[in-house]
Amino acid sequence: MNGNPTHIYKHRQIAILAFEDCEILDVCGPLDVFAGTDGWLGRIGRTSAPAYSWSLLAPWAGPVVTASGTRLVADRRFDEAGDGIDTLLIAGGEGVERALGNTSLMDWLNRMGRQVRRIAAISTGAFLLAGSGVLDGHRATTHWACCARLADSYPNIRVETDRLWVRDGSVYTSGGAFAGIDLALALIEEDWGKDIAVLVSHGRRPYEYRATA
Amino acid sequence: MNGNPTHIYKHRQIAILAFEDCEILDVCGPLDVFAGTDGWLGRIGRTSAPAYSWSLLAPWAGPVVTASGTRLVADRRFDEAGDGIDTLLIAGGEGVERALGNTSLMDWLNRMGRQVRRIAAISTGAFLLAGSGVLDGHRATTHWACCARLADSYPNIRVETDRLWVRDGSVYTSGGAFAGIDLALALIEEDWGKDIAVLVSHGRRPYEYRATA
Repeated sequence: MNGNPTHIYKHRQIAILAFEDCEILDVCGPLDVFAGTDGWLGRIGRTSAPAYSWSLLAPWAGPVVTASGTRLVADRRFDEAGDGIDTLLIAGGEGVERALGNTSLMDWLNRMGRQVRRIAAISTGAFLLAGSGVLDGHRATTHWACCARLADSYPNIRVETDRLWVRDGSVYTSGGAFAGIDLALALIEEDWGKDIAVLVSHGRRPYEYRATA
Repeated sequence: MNGNPTHIYKHRQIAILAFEDCEILDVCGPLDVFAGTDGWLGRIGRTSAPAYSWSLLAPWAGPVVTASGTRLVADRRFDEAGDGIDTLLIAGGEGVERALGNTSLMDWLNRMGRQVRRIAAISTGAFLLAGSGVLDGHRATTHWACCARLADSYPNIRVETDRLWVRDGSVYTSGGAFAGIDLALALIEEDWGKDIAVLVSHGRRPYEYRATA
């Protein structure tokens, strides 16, 4: 234990959804932010036990080939994730089109959208939230190259361009992979304050947390 | 085929070295840059066949647990990588200390340092290049929090602080995980020019390629 924790906190389960041909950085950027935060909180004595746990979900447990060809290992199938998820992150990438055809995944996302405290899509992961109905009537953004397509395909979503990320209630969406890191840092700020978000981004220097969307 | 290639080019093999408890972003950031470049070059018609291939190496083939707990899958064992590597990247992370004790890995890195066109360490991966002798007499940098320790441990390395990355001959080193992305973009600029490096970074918006170290 590193000093006395100065903050009453709740352990939170983070889950990140990957799928075949997802963008590896959409997964690993936010994941690195949550893992880094947990490390910092312990080192500076803000927590005496892990603040976060995180797991990688996919349509199946085991190796998932990302769009880069490099494989990540999913910890479990999405529908085996249980009910304890606090924040669910959804990657984007080339494989989004195929994932949209997975009706049990779409049903699960729709249910999660009503159940979790926060649901957040990185980059073109927004199309999965759109396809599952989670973005209905919401403000949202996506990868800059795909904003027009999102707006055309889903007229009931108010697509905001040129934003790093957008929060609308419990639903968050971000631009490309790097904006996904900004979004993850913003979630850290919500949970732990700006000083911690800045500390985590500085630890990965020279990334500067911009603290606004 | 997307248009006619306007550039005579050579196919290049990129390899990234991971190990237990390496930093996942040190691996996935640069990997995403090379994969992204390959995609862009094809889409804009600069190439008619892949410009790069890449593989993930580790002390063993198969799943490697990173410091975040999430697993990447190594394509092959480092000493099965063959002689065709053009650019070898080395991740950093908590696991560096243990990797330094792997004498066959150190011998291999030493040999690679004399063999490959470019060898590049991300963040505390610099300690692996130092331990294997590749950085002897070189200018180098590492994660900002570890510059003093690198200089103290290896007096024959000229450690430069407050640089995104350092090139000294064929040996490259970078600051933390995000500086590793800058370094990867600089390697792309060397191979394909600044316009392509900017295009790749813009594609991952809002990351801005700084084009200087």
